[in-house]
Amino acid sequence: MSQQISEPEPLRALIEALRCLPGVGERSSRRMAYHLLQHDPRGAQRLGEALCRAVEGVGHCRRCNGFSEDEICAMCSSDRRDASLLCVVETPADQNMIEASHGYTGLYYVLMGRLAPLEGVGPDQLQFDRLLSRASDPAVQEVILATNFTPEGETTAHYLSELLRARGRKVTRLARGVPAGSELEYVDAGTIAWALMERRGT
Amino acid sequence: MSQQISEPEPLRALIEALRCLPGVGERSSRRMAYHLLQHDPRGAQRLGEALCRAVEGVGHCRRCNGFSEDEICAMCSSDRRDASLLCVVETPADQNMIEASHGYTGLYYVLMGRLAPLEGVGPDQLQFDRLLSRASDPAVQEVILATNFTPEGETTAHYLSELLRARGRKVTRLARGVPAGSELEYVDAGTIAWALMERRGT
Repeated sequence: MSQQISEPEPLRALIEALRCLPGVGERSSRRMAYHLLQHDPRGAQRLGEALCRAVEGVGHCRRCNGFSEDEICAMCSSDRRDASLLCVVETPADQNMIEASHGYTGLYYVLMGRLAPLEGVGPDQLQFDRLLSRASDPAVQEVILATNFTPEGETTAHYLSELLRARGRKVTRLARGVPAGSELEYVDAGTIAWALMERRGT
Repeated sequence: MSQQISEPEPLRALIEALRCLPGVGERSSRRMAYHLLQHDPRGAQRLGEALCRAVEGVGHCRRCNGFSEDEICAMCSSDRRDASLLCVVETPADQNMIEASHGYTGLYYVLMGRLAPLEGVGPDQLQFDRLLSRASDPAVQEVILATNFTPEGETTAHYLSELLRARGRKVTRLARGVPAGSELEYVDAGTIAWALMERRGT
């Protein structure tokens, strides 16, 4: 859409700025700006302040690399978590999902990404040295790799597993198999193949 | 996704505030917040400031109801536009498209919506009285209804047309027909039916 009418400068700046949101292009940023100004100026104001406050106030936990206001986040400084387990996840969203399973009481390390050489994301960008130094804490007995089961996530897990094993750490990976509650007829063949390969005695 | 790990308060506030964006729910607002804080804090800062600035600085033009920093927008105060034509559109985006066609030199009135009784949007919400008083300017010779060709847009056009005609204004509607450059085989039957009904001598 070629821009023809002269928009007020703050509106033009807002449309441009909204494009920093993932998946938002020219057309939807314009739609968002119109919507906010027309129907929800209070929401827009609140969002504006929340953005500035979050950028200023939120950093990374020095231990787990997750988002935190403090140098060490609440979970890392809690004495109610099992410090012998360290679970490596790609994002805070993944960490949330594992917490929601109520099946884990150890600590985390959040990579904030995964290896993706084609996008220029390598071991340096993900600061693997920080993870390695965290994992070399003598309290850690086992590192659980919980990156995604996507090609990138698998590559990341494989790479990390090599590095960690070379340093003598015990490394495990989340189990692959048929999802809970699913009917075999509707599970994809690759998953069935994995579930067969990794079948276990009962 | 039930929230389990305790997120820093400014992050939680940001995730909540992002939900004021149209089409953004819990999951995508969280993804956006993570993305901004992790990969684009400068963009987030700029967006935050742009939002606050736009909410404060942008209002509505008193004549055309479009977004404007001034009481009367640049287009309405321009003497290079044909003041005898008044084109009624639903949104600034529609206005942009008409300008991009280079086929119109008159002025606009932006409804900032369309009649949608089920959503509680009636003539009062759209301030039809403002449009009527604008259209009763003696300089206006013709009101062109350019609302969308959707059920709501058609209803809005029909309703406005009655009101304006009752006040003795000449009212026209954008032509319906086969889109430029299209092959009849791929045009929908409703459009063909309209194009036949409104066929014209050459």
